[in-house]
Amino acid sequence: MSLKFKISKKSGRNFARLASLSVRDFELKTPVFMPVGTYGTIESLSPEELYNLDYNLILANTYHLYLRPGHELIKKFGGLREFTGFKRLFLTDSGGFQIFSLSQLRKVDDDGVNFKSHIDGSLHRLTPELSIQIQNALGSDIIMAFDECPSGGAEYEYVRAACQRTFEWAKRSLNAHENRDTQAIFGIVQGGIYSDLRQESLNQITSLPFDGFAIGGLAVGEDKNDSYRIVSEIAPRMPEDYPRYAMGIGEPEDILYYVKNGVDMFDCVIPTRNARNGQFFTFFGRFNIRNSRFYDDNSPLEEGCSCYSCRNFSRAYVRHLYMINEILAHRLLTIHNLAFYKRLFTSIQKAIEDDRLEEFEIEFLKNYKNTEEVLSG
Amino acid sequence: MSLKFKISKKSGRNFARLASLSVRDFELKTPVFMPVGTYGTIESLSPEELYNLDYNLILANTYHLYLRPGHELIKKFGGLREFTGFKRLFLTDSGGFQIFSLSQLRKVDDDGVNFKSHIDGSLHRLTPELSIQIQNALGSDIIMAFDECPSGGAEYEYVRAACQRTFEWAKRSLNAHENRDTQAIFGIVQGGIYSDLRQESLNQITSLPFDGFAIGGLAVGEDKNDSYRIVSEIAPRMPEDYPRYAMGIGEPEDILYYVKNGVDMFDCVIPTRNARNGQFFTFFGRFNIRNSRFYDDNSPLEEGCSCYSCRNFSRAYVRHLYMINEILAHRLLTIHNLAFYKRLFTSIQKAIEDDRLEEFEIEFLKNYKNTEEVLSG
Repeated sequence: MSLKFKISKKSGRNFARLASLSVRDFELKTPVFMPVGTYGTIESLSPEELYNLDYNLILANTYHLYLRPGHELIKKFGGLREFTGFKRLFLTDSGGFQIFSLSQLRKVDDDGVNFKSHIDGSLHRLTPELSIQIQNALGSDIIMAFDECPSGGAEYEYVRAACQRTFEWAKRSLNAHENRDTQAIFGIVQGGIYSDLRQESLNQITSLPFDGFAIGGLAVGEDKNDSYRIVSEIAPRMPEDYPRYAMGIGEPEDILYYVKNGVDMFDCVIPTRNARNGQFFTFFGRFNIRNSRFYDDNSPLEEGCSCYSCRNFSRAYVRHLYMINEILAHRLLTIHNLAFYKRLFTSIQKAIEDDRLEEFEIEFLKNYKNTEEVLSG
Repeated sequence: MSLKFKISKKSGRNFARLASLSVRDFELKTPVFMPVGTYGTIESLSPEELYNLDYNLILANTYHLYLRPGHELIKKFGGLREFTGFKRLFLTDSGGFQIFSLSQLRKVDDDGVNFKSHIDGSLHRLTPELSIQIQNALGSDIIMAFDECPSGGAEYEYVRAACQRTFEWAKRSLNAHENRDTQAIFGIVQGGIYSDLRQESLNQITSLPFDGFAIGGLAVGEDKNDSYRIVSEIAPRMPEDYPRYAMGIGEPEDILYYVKNGVDMFDCVIPTRNARNGQFFTFFGRFNIRNSRFYDDNSPLEEGCSCYSCRNFSRAYVRHLYMINEILAHRLLTIHNLAFYKRLFTSIQKAIEDDRLEEFEIEFLKNYKNTEEVLSG
């Protein structure tokens, strides 16, 4: 097995845990955040900029890389690390989520999914075996079992069938996996907003010899009360000694909630995607650089932040760049937002260490939420 | 005076010269190329990336900065260096060229120009005094006199009147300049494709106490034979001991021709603008990264180039980034193209030093032109 997970500290008051996740030569502290590099790269950033931000593990999307440039090309180059120049760690998803959220005319059967490319309408078919074959070709360090991810509004019977399929596909994913010694593989618990289906999926998936376990199908359109209920029921029951990964989560407030329920790994497009729209995160709320109040603001994006953007540039200058559509603005906002997420996770780790996660959460949300309402652009 | 210019070597066979241009703490070797940072920054690049490419002098556009974000804001921040974070040297143009090429409904009178912003149609008036006032506010190290730049197809009588106006405006520019000790000022020779008007403008402009002299109004739509004729007539007659600057030039082959005629300074959008369109320069011609032949090409953009892009990424990866509209592609191509221009200029300097510029030109063009025809995408 290519992955080691060791818990160093458990909270005395909730399910939060501090652990080390070792993959190849890299030891990551969890809870950990993975930026999303859809096509193998975080938009606008170089590998060095990610290293400088201390991100050693990023997520890439199997569905997108399968369509462009194709996994065979990446395999030919020696995998994602060699192809992209990001020489640290990759996790790839299975492609399932994108098929269900992006592509048209998808048709699921028990063997796999037919779908049309969202780019050119070309016809494709993905099966558990092909998903794993693609991820084997990509050479990512952690790969995900192929699952079916129903939307947040899906009916009970549909979700029940999807769970059963996900279980069968999980077994087939494990069977298809060729590089067990170099690529860890995680299983995914589904079940939508239905507690009994979640529990059954948990029992099924955790009965299989995966290296870690994920909760999928959250933040896919359901009510937040439902996702919070599900994570509080399911996450603490996930196998204690394995990493727990909440896919596609999330907003800072969600992350805090999930961590308290024992989740270790997160990925989300928010810090990077929102940068493109001018949004930047601070411990005093989220702002939009377009706001005219920043026109002559000589302060950094966030006072006290030591990221490259904050060390070197004023809000006024970043706003100027943004208003003229200069892509350096995108880059500077992306760097800052990822630095913010890094600081958030470092603070969370520290709070778990000191067994004061609730206090940190209250304090954080007081600043983050209050100011956001007043000031967000 | 804030600028020193010292010729260290003259070619024995043409008018080329090698010199040092000292401004503040920076000593530049000429012939020198200035990348164009329209709004104060080279598109997609950070200041550090420019330092790493050894570019210490960049051009910014007065017209654009006047409209967005406004020179008063930049002044309030302490000038372009402080505002943009590029702490080396800036040259600003006078705004004249953009008014005549970009804005609608411009109306010239002897006192100045009324024009409509190309962005929002708002009405503005630029005079020599205001152009200099703006450039004083921007705090650029070299500023340009306000001139009228007729298009390449302009009639003799029109160009004659424009030359006269340019002379009057040159005197007013000098009078309006408030920071002569910290900002050098260059005069601009106009005259279109008409040899006698060029000679007259040369006599007029060089009678004034400028710190350097530029040839404007070339590569603005005229036949290349005409611009080559004009530069061969005028450049060698420009004052020997002052820097000579060909505005908006150019393509590598043009640069070689101009250097042989004694020009020292160049600026051009080509290496940066073309990067956005996927074009990259090599000593073996220009190529477009979109070309399908690069799909699985594991070589760097240019074999033997030591720029960041070439050290770290394959053509196949840069092409992948370009095809998915990832702006890192723009950034990597920009870095490479500026590295190419840097190597071209270093080679030119070396060739002048060794008094073998013609040989270098023949060899360079043989590789650059031949291959371009065969392979450019």
